[in-house]
Amino acid sequence: MTGIRQSWLDIPANSHFSLRNIPFGIISTRSNPRHRPAIAIGNYALDLLEFSRSGGFEKSGFTNISVFESSTLNAFAALGREAHRLVRSYIQAILTAGGQFPDILEQNNMLRELALLPLFSVQNHLPLEIGDYTDFYVGRNHAYNCGIIFRGPENALNLNYYHMPVGYHGRASSIVISGTPIKRPVGQILPDPTATVPVLEPSRRLDYELELAAFIATGNNMGERINVDDAEEHIFGYVLMNDWSARDVQAWEYIPLGPFTAKNFGTSISAWVVTPDALEPYKTRPLQRPAEAGVLLPYLQEKKQETVYDIKLQVEYQTAEGDKAVIANVSTQYLLFSFAQMIAHHTVTGANLRSGDLIASGTISGEDSHSYGSLLEKSQAGKVQFIIGQSTRTFLRDGDTVTFTGAADDSSGAGLVGFGEVTGSILKSDF
Amino acid sequence: MTGIRQSWLDIPANSHFSLRNIPFGIISTRSNPRHRPAIAIGNYALDLLEFSRSGGFEKSGFTNISVFESSTLNAFAALGREAHRLVRSYIQAILTAGGQFPDILEQNNMLRELALLPLFSVQNHLPLEIGDYTDFYVGRNHAYNCGIIFRGPENALNLNYYHMPVGYHGRASSIVISGTPIKRPVGQILPDPTATVPVLEPSRRLDYELELAAFIATGNNMGERINVDDAEEHIFGYVLMNDWSARDVQAWEYIPLGPFTAKNFGTSISAWVVTPDALEPYKTRPLQRPAEAGVLLPYLQEKKQETVYDIKLQVEYQTAEGDKAVIANVSTQYLLFSFAQMIAHHTVTGANLRSGDLIASGTISGEDSHSYGSLLEKSQAGKVQFIIGQSTRTFLRDGDTVTFTGAADDSSGAGLVGFGEVTGSILKSDF
Repeated sequence: MTGIRQSWLDIPANSHFSLRNIPFGIISTRSNPRHRPAIAIGNYALDLLEFSRSGGFEKSGFTNISVFESSTLNAFAALGREAHRLVRSYIQAILTAGGQFPDILEQNNMLRELALLPLFSVQNHLPLEIGDYTDFYVGRNHAYNCGIIFRGPENALNLNYYHMPVGYHGRASSIVISGTPIKRPVGQILPDPTATVPVLEPSRRLDYELELAAFIATGNNMGERINVDDAEEHIFGYVLMNDWSARDVQAWEYIPLGPFTAKNFGTSISAWVVTPDALEPYKTRPLQRPAEAGVLLPYLQEKKQETVYDIKLQVEYQTAEGDKAVIANVSTQYLLFSFAQMIAHHTVTGANLRSGDLIASGTISGEDSHSYGSLLEKSQAGKVQFIIGQSTRTFLRDGDTVTFTGAADDSSGAGLVGFGEVTGSILKSDF
Repeated sequence: MTGIRQSWLDIPANSHFSLRNIPFGIISTRSNPRHRPAIAIGNYALDLLEFSRSGGFEKSGFTNISVFESSTLNAFAALGREAHRLVRSYIQAILTAGGQFPDILEQNNMLRELALLPLFSVQNHLPLEIGDYTDFYVGRNHAYNCGIIFRGPENALNLNYYHMPVGYHGRASSIVISGTPIKRPVGQILPDPTATVPVLEPSRRLDYELELAAFIATGNNMGERINVDDAEEHIFGYVLMNDWSARDVQAWEYIPLGPFTAKNFGTSISAWVVTPDALEPYKTRPLQRPAEAGVLLPYLQEKKQETVYDIKLQVEYQTAEGDKAVIANVSTQYLLFSFAQMIAHHTVTGANLRSGDLIASGTISGEDSHSYGSLLEKSQAGKVQFIIGQSTRTFLRDGDTVTFTGAADDSSGAGLVGFGEVTGSILKSDF
């Protein structure tokens, strides 16, 4: 482990919030209900409002500290990546053992007391106020598996699929922070496969979707495009996402304009925004583009070869009966397009992105049933039950809890760059 | 015209902004660039910031006048319909000849001078900051005509079409105020009907869509539903909308998740928000539900029979060459579902609407080629040219201008309840 910087704080080796990470979030505490910015480090949150008010940034060269007075990270995100780099590397410096600024926090008992809060004592809130939310569909295995279920193997992937990151606009108002319960939605469904007239009932096929999502730092003007090689500079950071989906509602409603009420009832995200700089060491080549897919149009061709991350994602399922198991492990390497490509495509016709917009990858699935990012795939559209301890499932039942975790690790001993978790439990419908 | 209230202001008989209307907007002027609320009356805007600061509301019973300090109408909208009714009826009273409060404005030269601004001197801005934007597809003739073009006559209307207001989430960031030019989008299109590999080019099939849209006044909590009979109480008011569309991009991208870059580059709305109270006298029965469509599910059944408006819409086309003609006239009576039904369906799975959200009807078309709300229909997907003076067109050319107007009139002599216009010109692509 020689040459690797360590913190003077005791950071557990399996912590998602190593010195390499420094993710940003919004917290409150019982003693101070005000929503305020923070970073996560080991088992602590560093309260950036308190830290900046106490002069913590005085030696940093970062002068826009008024952004930490805000109840969201929008103002900080909008400063752009140079500002995020400056703040992150300065915070790394003050947290490093034998670092440049021991007087700021390490040797400052009073500020440590005030600003360094045990993670278990903080409540997280949505990190940014979200303008528009866009959901892509670039997990190729998921798209293929769903395509077979909805349209049969011949039409599983439409002709356009390998030429563009397919996506659609989602619902921003119902994006909630990890831990928020999700009420089983009531919607129009066909009561049986031969029916042609719908009923209004609680969804029988409630599902989750395992996704990675990016918050936009700086946008573009309407009528302009973001170049694919510049696009990463527009990203503030990433969160895990669970895009809850009612598959029976979706199957009935999605032709011809796409999913609508099947997905607009709730979408959960993890609390801590992990910066592109923290994830940069975990870039790799995408796995998923077959040779026969042909050549991309130039506006989607990136100069870099390593364009996607290798973040290890995990789905843990806890049943209402109390059984618990990890039912999927998959890497984000299975994304067909990078976030830079999603941004370039999103803006190609001149749509303007704004600071605080959220862009999600679509469900990430691997090659086999232990790597599927949705129950639609795992249960083969309800045909196959899977086992969790003493319980069996095809889709979500009331009282079940789904928890996604994700972290990148290069086994260097420098620690994990992780997201913590995004978790949610299903409440009974009130219908 | 006995018994009809008249204003002491000289309001032209063809004005959209009669004493019956009193629509709300956001204005600025050359002498005062601050964005501030106003209402439109005849050829004037009444500056509500100036009016309220000068004590104009003192006899009104309306005490929340701080909402008029805002640069958008969100705070006013969020007060709910009782507040809108109070303000609108009070403003009608102070503008009525022989009314209850002649001292407020009619006899108050100084306030008239300060607050009553000629419409030609004001600049309009987006009336509300828009959270989520949803576009429905409930113009039955348009859906049928487009369905034939995209999928053939057998599959023109999907099985779900008569059972629910079909809709999808749109892009909020690129909604602009009337008068904003629209740059021709560049996007992925198939270069000819037999091609299977796309090119990146300026759209060759740029189109408009004639729509009516509603701003939400008060929302609902996530996980709750809005009852169809209560839904109108959640509407602040209506605007005309032009949902610009690149048909070649749309045809290539829309399977399976719906239109995305084909529509996210720009959407124009009219400036003045017309309240449901102003439009109430123009309610009528919808025209479009055939008997064979069957019975609606109870959550979409309204107690009222008269659920849609009879607002006369008009499309005026001015070519880059300078020719000009009205190319469509159609009534909003051609909507298959009411806005109340759209809201009930939007929230059926528990999606939360928020104050400032915008909900659009989808394109409104009548029965024949002089009543189509899009060029896709008028040109039969580019197969038929239409004539405007010395010019011919199938889709929009650079330099063309499209202007929608709309007004309701019961021929009582009480004047029009109109929207003014939503207009936009096409700029050359910079590709």
